[in-house]
Amino acid sequence: MDIYLQAAIAEARKGLEEGGIPIGSVLVIDGEIVGRGRNRRVQKGSAILHAEMDCLENAGRLSAAEYRRATLYSTLSPCDMCSGAILLYGIPRVVAGENRTFHGPETYLRSRNVELLVLDDPECAALMKDFIAAHPALWNEDIGV
Amino acid sequence: MDIYLQAAIAEARKGLEEGGIPIGSVLVIDGEIVGRGRNRRVQKGSAILHAEMDCLENAGRLSAAEYRRATLYSTLSPCDMCSGAILLYGIPRVVAGENRTFHGPETYLRSRNVELLVLDDPECAALMKDFIAAHPALWNEDIGV
Repeated sequence: MDIYLQAAIAEARKGLEEGGIPIGSVLVIDGEIVGRGRNRRVQKGSAILHAEMDCLENAGRLSAAEYRRATLYSTLSPCDMCSGAILLYGIPRVVAGENRTFHGPETYLRSRNVELLVLDDPECAALMKDFIAAHPALWNEDIGV
Repeated sequence: MDIYLQAAIAEARKGLEEGGIPIGSVLVIDGEIVGRGRNRRVQKGSAILHAEMDCLENAGRLSAAEYRRATLYSTLSPCDMCSGAILLYGIPRVVAGENRTFHGPETYLRSRNVELLVLDDPECAALMKDFIAAHPALWNEDIGV
């Protein structure tokens, strides 16, 4: 399996162990993981720390030139907020583990020239399917429903 | 002047005093300010704490029903990331102080049924115009340029 998706899944599993929502993300530049993150709504009482946002925050302040060489991995199809962050920074490539359990604005991302690959990974989908079944209210809160 | 825009400007000025980028934001529900924020890229070394994001974070975890009664004020037209957060949470109304110094995806926000009012406030515009002239590289970093 893709080593970067594997690193994102490791973040998702860490989140699950902490009692959080199991979504993980890594930012890769020139083959190197420069940031890792996981959804921390529960852990930090946060409304903005989706996995991809936490990952971008942990990667620190980067230049536009760095973002333009980056690929953002997420175990799940990025939501409106995280897609917006991808657009703000001009991150050209996104790899999502799956989009069966949640479907972000993929068409819009592509219309703004982001290359988006959805891997349909069964491990990512199983993590979310089990979590949503066990914690539907928390999941709805996380996606503004 | 609109008391909520005034509160957002107060946040922007606080940010400027801290050495930060002078953009402020407040979240209003049922006439009450439930969150305040300011751009904290400099102050916290943050890639995600634009004013609106800081404001949403400071407002804490809210329900979809609360967001649906909210108005988000910002001294500046919201960028792709902050617009995405507005869409994620279904915030129906946005009031921006100005869009002369930066223009977010306003057409897209409106196409997704967000009511967006731009006040063209001279104080908001002057704050940003002066800041951008003094710190162009920092400003470019903040908008991914």
